[in-house]
Amino acid sequence: MVNWNNLDTLTSYEELKGVATVDLAAVMSGDQGAQRVKKYSVPMACGLDFNYAAKQVDDTVLAALAKLADEAQLAEKFEALYNGEVINTGEKRLVLHHLTRGQLGDAVTADGVDKRSFYVEQQNKIADFAKKVHSGEITNAAGEKFTTVVQIGIGGSDLGPRAMYLALENWAKKNNTFKMEAKFISNVDPDDAAAVLNSVDVAHSIFVLVSKSGTTLETLTNESFVKDALKNAGLDASKHMIAVTSETSPLAKSDDYLAAFFMDDYIGGRFSSTSAVGGAVLSLAFGPDVFAQFLEGAAEEDKLATNKDLLQNPAMLDALIGIYERNVLGMPSTAVLPYSQALSRFPAHLQQLDMESNGKSVNRFGEEINYLTGPVIFGEPGTNGQHSFYQLLHQGTDIVPLQFIGFKNSQIGTDVVIQDSTSQQKLCANVAAQIVAFACGKDDEDKNKSFKGGRPSSIIIGDSLNPQALGALLSHFENKVMYQGFVWNINSFDQEGVQLGKVLAKRVLAHDTDGALKVYSDLLNI
Amino acid sequence: MVNWNNLDTLTSYEELKGVATVDLAAVMSGDQGAQRVKKYSVPMACGLDFNYAAKQVDDTVLAALAKLADEAQLAEKFEALYNGEVINTGEKRLVLHHLTRGQLGDAVTADGVDKRSFYVEQQNKIADFAKKVHSGEITNAAGEKFTTVVQIGIGGSDLGPRAMYLALENWAKKNNTFKMEAKFISNVDPDDAAAVLNSVDVAHSIFVLVSKSGTTLETLTNESFVKDALKNAGLDASKHMIAVTSETSPLAKSDDYLAAFFMDDYIGGRFSSTSAVGGAVLSLAFGPDVFAQFLEGAAEEDKLATNKDLLQNPAMLDALIGIYERNVLGMPSTAVLPYSQALSRFPAHLQQLDMESNGKSVNRFGEEINYLTGPVIFGEPGTNGQHSFYQLLHQGTDIVPLQFIGFKNSQIGTDVVIQDSTSQQKLCANVAAQIVAFACGKDDEDKNKSFKGGRPSSIIIGDSLNPQALGALLSHFENKVMYQGFVWNINSFDQEGVQLGKVLAKRVLAHDTDGALKVYSDLLNI
Repeated sequence: MVNWNNLDTLTSYEELKGVATVDLAAVMSGDQGAQRVKKYSVPMACGLDFNYAAKQVDDTVLAALAKLADEAQLAEKFEALYNGEVINTGEKRLVLHHLTRGQLGDAVTADGVDKRSFYVEQQNKIADFAKKVHSGEITNAAGEKFTTVVQIGIGGSDLGPRAMYLALENWAKKNNTFKMEAKFISNVDPDDAAAVLNSVDVAHSIFVLVSKSGTTLETLTNESFVKDALKNAGLDASKHMIAVTSETSPLAKSDDYLAAFFMDDYIGGRFSSTSAVGGAVLSLAFGPDVFAQFLEGAAEEDKLATNKDLLQNPAMLDALIGIYERNVLGMPSTAVLPYSQALSRFPAHLQQLDMESNGKSVNRFGEEINYLTGPVIFGEPGTNGQHSFYQLLHQGTDIVPLQFIGFKNSQIGTDVVIQDSTSQQKLCANVAAQIVAFACGKDDEDKNKSFKGGRPSSIIIGDSLNPQALGALLSHFENKVMYQGFVWNINSFDQEGVQLGKVLAKRVLAHDTDGALKVYSDLLNI
Repeated sequence: MVNWNNLDTLTSYEELKGVATVDLAAVMSGDQGAQRVKKYSVPMACGLDFNYAAKQVDDTVLAALAKLADEAQLAEKFEALYNGEVINTGEKRLVLHHLTRGQLGDAVTADGVDKRSFYVEQQNKIADFAKKVHSGEITNAAGEKFTTVVQIGIGGSDLGPRAMYLALENWAKKNNTFKMEAKFISNVDPDDAAAVLNSVDVAHSIFVLVSKSGTTLETLTNESFVKDALKNAGLDASKHMIAVTSETSPLAKSDDYLAAFFMDDYIGGRFSSTSAVGGAVLSLAFGPDVFAQFLEGAAEEDKLATNKDLLQNPAMLDALIGIYERNVLGMPSTAVLPYSQALSRFPAHLQQLDMESNGKSVNRFGEEINYLTGPVIFGEPGTNGQHSFYQLLHQGTDIVPLQFIGFKNSQIGTDVVIQDSTSQQKLCANVAAQIVAFACGKDDEDKNKSFKGGRPSSIIIGDSLNPQALGALLSHFENKVMYQGFVWNINSFDQEGVQLGKVLAKRVLAHDTDGALKVYSDLLNI
């Protein structure tokens, strides 16, 4: 039986606030620093490691965090989640995205079916469909193969799948599993759809319409946009479109689609990359085997996240260090910094995952809370960011905790030696250097050239970014966010904060406005 | 004569802290809200307007901000800057990016030449070169036209030009001024260059190498990468490359380039989009006339930024409201939210512009300061962001000030009517709705569905995003950042915070490491 208590009611939280803070610059210097880097590391799945030596922690802080994890019953809460309890209290729903990639606990039945079987069935249906598209068994009306897949979706139906596609595009090309180019239409800005449609050969494109409810305004609007374009090209839209939706949505049984694949209410958009939402586009782009490898990586990492020992549970550890930085050390944001161009949109996905899940001011029972919850999340790939916003990270007045990601090897393998090192070595040298520069700093007589250090970071290190490693990375952050939500005692799985804007936008479009809203509408010529 | 004083020594700053704070939800409601939206607006250049009705200000706060602007001598400091004083104290340099688009004050002579004439001369050289490329007078060795331009640069040589290219790509296609596709290589990650090279026809590509010093590691490395590719394709690299650099750089007189165009030490990378750094790639992509229109827009907006009346100076006003939010109201970050897919990378450019300029902890004399400086800047286009991180913006525990940008018309003009409105109307309805939702909120018995409001935003509204409007937008933010730096009494034009990482990365590559740095290097297989 788990107890859902606010963070500020926990004894261990009070104790944590009393623990002496670590002088990061001091402990990361000299031999002590070397020892920390060796010691403060925990293996992840698929050959990844989570190294937190440059975080502002020591054994005492970690012991206090372990007590907090115990008192907050984090492992038990995850167990309740994957065994099918109603964790999404606001919407009264189960939270089942883990089941899309494995069975961590009991069989979970909902809507009269075993949900693991349901998700596997959808994967199999998608795999079958994708293979037929690749083989030419399913073609356009002229009997020609489809060459491009275009996802139409927004939010979780866009950011995750798009980030995953970009992460594996070059890997797939290098490993001869690249099947079709993917494009994405998301924004209701008509220039988004128009530009994407101008850039593809619609006659050889298959469109994936993704909307759980079948009512997302942007997505339905963009569907019409695409249907117009297909019609104008003399094509039958129903031969070019598939749907990913819930079984109860108006799209599910429509004749407008070549096929429909299903998700359900137990998978939030931002957690849906491993469901049919990511599965359709990624299986079409890279083949179903690659998508299966991606799921395997996520499943392996999920298993590690069940470990009750904090120091053996990378997601829980990352979560609790983040809580310490946010609620005890008072740091208001977190930067995600992958040293991999392939992860160019991974920070944007994590921005949604984290900020939409944990940007809440009431607890899971709808009561106001008196402590800070989710931080602002932002980031860009390194080394690019080094030539941009790192100035503030090094010498600004706020301290921003950093989450580095790095790989020993590139994806494509083409490289060049300049001044005795490859580009990949330069990339890795830079991330190693940054961690130490942020932690240790360097004094200078000229205070303008002085670095105080004490700026905490962690790094996830892998061999190379392949489908399994990507799955493990995704799972790590999903579970980190989940654990932080448990600590804050909030519901990480609803998003009521997006509703008011929708309601007011509808009023504007119906010309049912007054006051400031009317004047803004006039200014914008609506 | 201007006095450079720390913010916390100014009487007007103490007074500002004592001014009663505005209840934003209250004043934005009902008829009072409508009146504010009409009143709190100031015209910008090129038909843009800066509307700050939904900021947490009233006449009293604005009067206090005007006193602060006067006491801090903001207009006089800008005057000193454009008249050629050494404003970049750390590097002892003039700050002349405004001269790339107009002459605001006195003639400025440096390095023995009139700098306005120098920048115009470079623009003319670029225009001449671009026209010859477009006409086929300059071709590849086989006498065939170049079809693609690839910029090789990082930081300011990448983010600004890339954001501007994306902002105008569809506009140029629609207006028949599109000449060549542009691509960008920036990261030292070898997968960045390899993927871009795989995506272009190198035989018909012209590469623009951009490095002021001619020593930027990433850029020189990527140059070698490209030269290898050209050589492997049996091509003469010197017939495919041009350089943008300073006259004193090793690249300036090299035979390795078809042509070289010059910038100088008085233009920081993040302020270089209107110099040859942006000029070469944008003139090649869209034609020199489009680049000239972009400069015109920036020049017009620069003139408005010289106005000593705070309420008639959009950049100064935006800057001071930001100071109020950061230093008095205690808000730690700012989101940039353009409702325009074309501005997809504009927030990333502003992230560099702002955070690299004002992420400082010492004043312009190298003395430590005791107040907060630059905030974290992040953002994504709307409506996409609404389905992502807006949850935290609406209901999170921190208040994030918002900077909206919206246009009445799309660029491409293809649109679709669904439920009685176009996509463009839906886009505009959403931004209007968001401003009011953030400001006013809405109470609900269910606290999970309750919105406190009081979340401040401003909006820049324009007719459509064309080259002039883009120039004005860019200038607005450059001058906003400059004015905030003046208020904080910091040097916004150097970036010493990026140095330590570079030094340590070199040590890693030379295997000259110990302690934590050595262990990280080993873990990353360097």
